[in-house]
Amino acid sequence: MSVLVVGSVALDSVETPFGKADDVLGGSATFFSAAASLLTPVQLVGVVGSDYPIEKLKPLEDRGVDLAGLEHADGPSFRWRGRYRHDLNSAETLETQLGVFSRFSPKIPDQFRNAPFVFLGNIDPRLQLDVLQQVEKPRLVACDTMNFWIQSRRADLLALLEHVDLVTLNDGEARQLTEKVNLVQAAKWIMDMGPKTVIIKKGEHGAFMFTGGSIFFAPAFPLENVFDPTGAGDSFAGGFIGYLARTGDLGEANMRRAVMYGSAMGSFAVEKFSTERLMTLTRAELDARVSELKRLVAFEEEMPA
Amino acid sequence: MSVLVVGSVALDSVETPFGKADDVLGGSATFFSAAASLLTPVQLVGVVGSDYPIEKLKPLEDRGVDLAGLEHADGPSFRWRGRYRHDLNSAETLETQLGVFSRFSPKIPDQFRNAPFVFLGNIDPRLQLDVLQQVEKPRLVACDTMNFWIQSRRADLLALLEHVDLVTLNDGEARQLTEKVNLVQAAKWIMDMGPKTVIIKKGEHGAFMFTGGSIFFAPAFPLENVFDPTGAGDSFAGGFIGYLARTGDLGEANMRRAVMYGSAMGSFAVEKFSTERLMTLTRAELDARVSELKRLVAFEEEMPA
Repeated sequence: MSVLVVGSVALDSVETPFGKADDVLGGSATFFSAAASLLTPVQLVGVVGSDYPIEKLKPLEDRGVDLAGLEHADGPSFRWRGRYRHDLNSAETLETQLGVFSRFSPKIPDQFRNAPFVFLGNIDPRLQLDVLQQVEKPRLVACDTMNFWIQSRRADLLALLEHVDLVTLNDGEARQLTEKVNLVQAAKWIMDMGPKTVIIKKGEHGAFMFTGGSIFFAPAFPLENVFDPTGAGDSFAGGFIGYLARTGDLGEANMRRAVMYGSAMGSFAVEKFSTERLMTLTRAELDARVSELKRLVAFEEEMPA
Repeated sequence: MSVLVVGSVALDSVETPFGKADDVLGGSATFFSAAASLLTPVQLVGVVGSDYPIEKLKPLEDRGVDLAGLEHADGPSFRWRGRYRHDLNSAETLETQLGVFSRFSPKIPDQFRNAPFVFLGNIDPRLQLDVLQQVEKPRLVACDTMNFWIQSRRADLLALLEHVDLVTLNDGEARQLTEKVNLVQAAKWIMDMGPKTVIIKKGEHGAFMFTGGSIFFAPAFPLENVFDPTGAGDSFAGGFIGYLARTGDLGEANMRRAVMYGSAMGSFAVEKFSTERLMTLTRAELDARVSELKRLVAFEEEMPA
């Protein structure tokens, strides 16, 4: 089944201790699509400016990302410039130019309106709500958000939560949104607002899925070399939602498997700049990493005496 | 089989957002013993001052901790006073009085010298090395350390590493010791110094065990209420080494199981002040939490098409 993703399509310039990349593919919808398209057809809705090197999106199209919803607007594209220091833990934003993204108003093409899976990438919650007016009873609506919207659009974000099945956010965002330090308490708070499932991503420390009364934990793959952390969270979401859409199974056992695909996908995303590694990734490599993650936590309980 | 532990025996005064406890049992050897003694006999070597309320150690003796190596010295006991703020992540030390601990020189009683398992708690690495002169070919020697010794006794600590089989330390200490940000690289660096196994504890983010060419990850139990984090790391070590000593099996499958017992033990330690929860803990409760940890990470891989 196909996934509709709405989010940013950007040009990133990134510096890490290992190198530098200028004007490479970036943005939440881009990373999500690069990841999810390995597993299932993707329909992308976003906006680029007149300066966007559109031919760079060709490999995404070749992998099954339908760009019919990518608006071409007059003006400069969304650009982000950031730097990671030695510890790679947090990006230092050097420059953000919203460009045409500042006037983005998602228009869902008719042929995308019945997408069974919808991922509302990190944009203004008012726009996320607006997208939901344009789609027809999806099987699963998931959303992401970030600190900026939690602070500036809190009421809209809470209104959105009533209408989504699943939220993905990182631990800092979960704490900011709920004002709970404890992540179990934070997840319960969010579930009380509407979503049946909450995914809390902790970067190199793995991810929790809270659903119904159960908690699942997916470890992060212990990479010896992390090259560029940009886009890891959106790649996680792409792997997770992409796997759910591919299998069409929303039972808990399959949701757990999907989280592992998200974790594996995130671990590949950080091995190179931009979407480079995701675009060469094969399904066999992805499956193999999920198997490695399984071995990472494998142990047998003691036999009863 | 029995475990010999050498470390601090202190009186802690702790403030958390949930309450306050004065002059309660503390110290690395105390937490380690409280944890390990649920699983196996423990022999403790440490020192207390003339003001130590020795009757408070009676429950430990009742649970199989042999205090024949606990020296009673003239002078004040080791006292630590600390506070945890809202996030409970790091202790703020308000006061440390080393007292008789500043002149501690471990003397291993004859009847402890052939202990098959030895845990060198966090003390001066010169003293840790000295203990190794006093024991007879243990099956497993493990040690812990801390930032203070890494900085002030680096050469002694590196000399010690040549003589231990296993090191437990937290992620910050591993990075400080090795000057590697990446924990996989840090673990390899430490293993190159001698130890066959490295355990890196990440608190609420779980723990890694590096041994031979394999990596094992044990999640931390997602507690909804953490009451007092003091002693979690030593309780982890007590659960881990205690389980190894009880089973006497140093194969990798059993080492993995032992790490899970360490993680479970650490999660109980933080539920109440001091060693309170550990002292009421039963083997059935501990086993049940290990089972819960197994379910926390349980998923089935996709069937081949």
